[in-house]
Amino acid sequence: MQDLARQLRVDSVRAADAAGSGHPTSSMSAADLLAVLLASHFRYDFERPAHPGNDRFVLSKGHASPLLYAAYKAAGVIDDAELLTFRTLGSRLEGHPTPQRLPWVETATGSLGQGLPVAVGIALSGKRLDRVGYRVHVLCGDSELAEGSVWEAAEHAGFEHLDNLTLIVDVNRLGQRGPTRHGHDLDAYARRFRAFGWHTIEIDGHDIAEIDHAYTGAASTTGRPTAIIARTVKGKGVASVEDREGLHGKPLPDAAAAVEELGGDRGTRVHVQAPPAARALHSVRGAEPELPRYEIGDEVATRTAFGEALTALGSARGDVVVLDGEVGDSTRAEFFAKEHPDRYFECYIAEQQLVGASVGLAARGWVPFAATFGAFLTRAHDFVRMAAVSGAGINLVGSHAGVAIGQDGPSQMGLEDLAMFRAVHGSTVLCPCDANQTAQLVARMADLSGVRYLRTSRGAGPVIYGPDEEFPVGGSKVLRSGDHDRVTLVAAGVTVHEALAAADELATAGIPVRVIDAYSVKPVDREALREAARATGCLVTVEDHREEGGLGDAVAQVFSDGSPAPRLVRLGVRTMPGSASPEEQLREAGIDAGSLSAAVALLVEQHVAP
Amino acid sequence: MQDLARQLRVDSVRAADAAGSGHPTSSMSAADLLAVLLASHFRYDFERPAHPGNDRFVLSKGHASPLLYAAYKAAGVIDDAELLTFRTLGSRLEGHPTPQRLPWVETATGSLGQGLPVAVGIALSGKRLDRVGYRVHVLCGDSELAEGSVWEAAEHAGFEHLDNLTLIVDVNRLGQRGPTRHGHDLDAYARRFRAFGWHTIEIDGHDIAEIDHAYTGAASTTGRPTAIIARTVKGKGVASVEDREGLHGKPLPDAAAAVEELGGDRGTRVHVQAPPAARALHSVRGAEPELPRYEIGDEVATRTAFGEALTALGSARGDVVVLDGEVGDSTRAEFFAKEHPDRYFECYIAEQQLVGASVGLAARGWVPFAATFGAFLTRAHDFVRMAAVSGAGINLVGSHAGVAIGQDGPSQMGLEDLAMFRAVHGSTVLCPCDANQTAQLVARMADLSGVRYLRTSRGAGPVIYGPDEEFPVGGSKVLRSGDHDRVTLVAAGVTVHEALAAADELATAGIPVRVIDAYSVKPVDREALREAARATGCLVTVEDHREEGGLGDAVAQVFSDGSPAPRLVRLGVRTMPGSASPEEQLREAGIDAGSLSAAVALLVEQHVAP
Repeated sequence: MQDLARQLRVDSVRAADAAGSGHPTSSMSAADLLAVLLASHFRYDFERPAHPGNDRFVLSKGHASPLLYAAYKAAGVIDDAELLTFRTLGSRLEGHPTPQRLPWVETATGSLGQGLPVAVGIALSGKRLDRVGYRVHVLCGDSELAEGSVWEAAEHAGFEHLDNLTLIVDVNRLGQRGPTRHGHDLDAYARRFRAFGWHTIEIDGHDIAEIDHAYTGAASTTGRPTAIIARTVKGKGVASVEDREGLHGKPLPDAAAAVEELGGDRGTRVHVQAPPAARALHSVRGAEPELPRYEIGDEVATRTAFGEALTALGSARGDVVVLDGEVGDSTRAEFFAKEHPDRYFECYIAEQQLVGASVGLAARGWVPFAATFGAFLTRAHDFVRMAAVSGAGINLVGSHAGVAIGQDGPSQMGLEDLAMFRAVHGSTVLCPCDANQTAQLVARMADLSGVRYLRTSRGAGPVIYGPDEEFPVGGSKVLRSGDHDRVTLVAAGVTVHEALAAADELATAGIPVRVIDAYSVKPVDREALREAARATGCLVTVEDHREEGGLGDAVAQVFSDGSPAPRLVRLGVRTMPGSASPEEQLREAGIDAGSLSAAVALLVEQHVAP
Repeated sequence: MQDLARQLRVDSVRAADAAGSGHPTSSMSAADLLAVLLASHFRYDFERPAHPGNDRFVLSKGHASPLLYAAYKAAGVIDDAELLTFRTLGSRLEGHPTPQRLPWVETATGSLGQGLPVAVGIALSGKRLDRVGYRVHVLCGDSELAEGSVWEAAEHAGFEHLDNLTLIVDVNRLGQRGPTRHGHDLDAYARRFRAFGWHTIEIDGHDIAEIDHAYTGAASTTGRPTAIIARTVKGKGVASVEDREGLHGKPLPDAAAAVEELGGDRGTRVHVQAPPAARALHSVRGAEPELPRYEIGDEVATRTAFGEALTALGSARGDVVVLDGEVGDSTRAEFFAKEHPDRYFECYIAEQQLVGASVGLAARGWVPFAATFGAFLTRAHDFVRMAAVSGAGINLVGSHAGVAIGQDGPSQMGLEDLAMFRAVHGSTVLCPCDANQTAQLVARMADLSGVRYLRTSRGAGPVIYGPDEEFPVGGSKVLRSGDHDRVTLVAAGVTVHEALAAADELATAGIPVRVIDAYSVKPVDREALREAARATGCLVTVEDHREEGGLGDAVAQVFSDGSPAPRLVRLGVRTMPGSASPEEQLREAGIDAGSLSAAVALLVEQHVAP
């Protein structure tokens, strides 16, 4: 075991030396912890990363990737030549590990404090969904315990009695720029975890017997997750760098001497135990969902249609799971809870954990829908960003979009959500305006890849589409159109109804306009927008969102490919709203039908006059 | 005191009844807690909210705004007529309180879990900067303790020994959609706070004597902040709504009967004690800073120029304070720490707290600069959003922008930061490309209002501007220009250097192009862009950022006002990068000089050919 630990250190040093960058000292502190885990406790089939019985390992301190890659080499799944490609163009061995490139990585890390939240999602799957006896191990640093997301996860795991979860804290005393708050005071950390309902074990993280005993103790603990708080030394094994400040994220000054001091490169391997035979309780995808059907003219909030469609989807598909941020009555996610309580996860007011657990559930093959107010999803922005790095398939649903929520005021208004989600790599951004459209999109988004965002509204609005209308992602609907349209109004969500009212008003005034419902904000319907540009020469976007980053930008992006562009005008929320009724809010923001008509009339007079 | 508490309940019920919405039951649970505070412990001059000796009160559970407004009425600073304007258009009494409208509000709340982080900033000011003996009181709900940001703040306050801080937890057992995790288990909360180094007092939150004793105990505690954990009943005082689920955020069914049950509207007032005479140690603004000067041609990273300029600014201005997210060696904020350790706050790896504390320091009149990696500022998105609702003046600095950081990979790359900050109301977004420009912008941003963002780069780049060049916010620099320019390249930050190289290459190939350094992304230089559009007919933006939400969108926005638009092309990061050298990263992303030249050559051939 000590040989293995030495080898992990040797290969960590060698990988970082070859790269000329990386974090060998952060790897060396945790080498004994990982060596004992791999050699004696971890059960994993490297040939079958999808084996349902596999234990799971999350390297929350993702910068210690040399250690992880050294372990892969010791397990025989990468060779020495590949190890030395560390951090080079095209290598699978990135600075921070991602599942996009390596099949044994559960989730992308590198933004600290995210490993435990995701691991809680994986452990929840094991306890409540898979019902397979795997353990989930997370190795984290001491610095990252300052992140609130760790304590959201600690609370969640403690409350859910996740005794299949072990957190190993590598307390090496040193962060990036210097000592941590608590140095080697192990009890400072243990106290906190105990207060959150965890079992804790404090050990010397370089004592093989103590480490071994701790893993055994964690596995035999019932009803509580276990945190192993390990006192370690950064750079352990090479005297010149041990426990020294100023060496974070730097290769060792003399790698050859270090390897020698560590006992040389002996090519030590490890045999990792195979997992037991296991069959996951994964429900396969069933029939097409029987989506709710709404009558044209009915008044239904899109959040309500979301809740009803999600429930129907859950009936058709056993792989759909739902997470709530303690607002299920508002987002209507609670409809799902009533029908499918076994697949509903209450995350309370902890949006980072809401998204982190979703990523963990997605890693185990589930199709998560996590819902809260659109405004509060900003709380999880970094988790969304990292979900994209992971390539995680998650559905996020933000209700209470825009000023149209009314009296509650700006703290509750999603006004930046489209901007946030549009900029996420590989994302899909959907903004439905009626109940049937919402229901269809809920079903469709479940089959997409990457991060999917659905924006719903608080207030009821008229159903304008029949229940059999189809809404492909990337499409749009032309709602008003004629041969003499002077302008095209492009709207999404609540502003579609304002645009329709404006169009009718303008038609009466002798100004025919086209109206496009751009329910798919990303990808946006380039063809329909180009056709409208050709036909009308001028596109006016109107959105219940900040002027930056949303529909206006999405439409402008279509015309940023070097071809001649139409005239563009954008209407969005420029002010800081206060409290007011929904109708007053739309008017104050200048995105109601009246403002839109006035803007178009002026525009036609000034610019587009024949 | 009981009369006062009853009056606060009466007016909470009346305000919500008049509005037809709001959160009276959440107000009623905390009425005794606030009544005792106001009547016997709080020292505040309502006529002089800026009085340096004033105690500070933060209503973290911002939805209990009826209680706050009832208190203002009892204190005589709003009248009954105004109370009944609650939640109506134009009223100062919004659904959630904001300092933009009410001078006695320290910070906007309504996104839960933000009151304590901001209050820690205010308390830090009292301890380490103002050196005035005010106390900071925060009233929060029990539900919001699930937010990790609360534990970032608890850790910060405990570590900094903020004994001038009292947190009052209104444990009314019920969240929005049902019971909280811990119900009335007061010790579950107390245990957690004690583990984080706090003094805790558990009380019956409706027992006047116990409450009074707790405030006295908090004030006499030294070396630790105090959390008063109060068992309360939601809807206390009106039997039909007491402790009942399903009544969150709803006016009482029969307000008149409720008022009667509460003892009627007696118009009880409170006399709040005046603060002691105090003089804050606020340093006034001094001379113009002696900014660092760099020689043209030197290779200097903009992050380094930031650190040096910030240090110089701190020497000239005593009101500048700096906050670090445990990466001061990377962001170069640590340069400031060496010169001005008394005004440097180490927040460790807790970005929500980093921004929350900044908002608190800004509320006390300081000019905070908070710095971490641009990527990790996404962790604080909701705090940034709420800072804008507060109208807080904060400077946020994100280093390690874009793929140009090289080997560390996507988890560390700020690729969504411009999108996030552009969509923030009233924000300023700056993206300098050289050291002298950075230094100038650091000094200028300190004088702006609202949320200011500066983006810096990891790698060294050439100094291209002289030290006396001026860079107004909202401006730009035309770096290449001639009478026959075929295209305009618009760049910012690291891509300016790529654009210059491309321009030189293209000039050699007989394609003269204009180059604009759009260092001010928001506000962007509309005039220069319009002039370039007139002159060249085609603008190509190139940015080390996602294609959505950044410079490309900012430039397109200029041409979204109905006037004829030029041809637009955007180059940004479309792929998910891995590890590679900075040069390889730029090339792989297609935003290096070579890619840019090729794109322009093709464009000129296809579209702009005369």
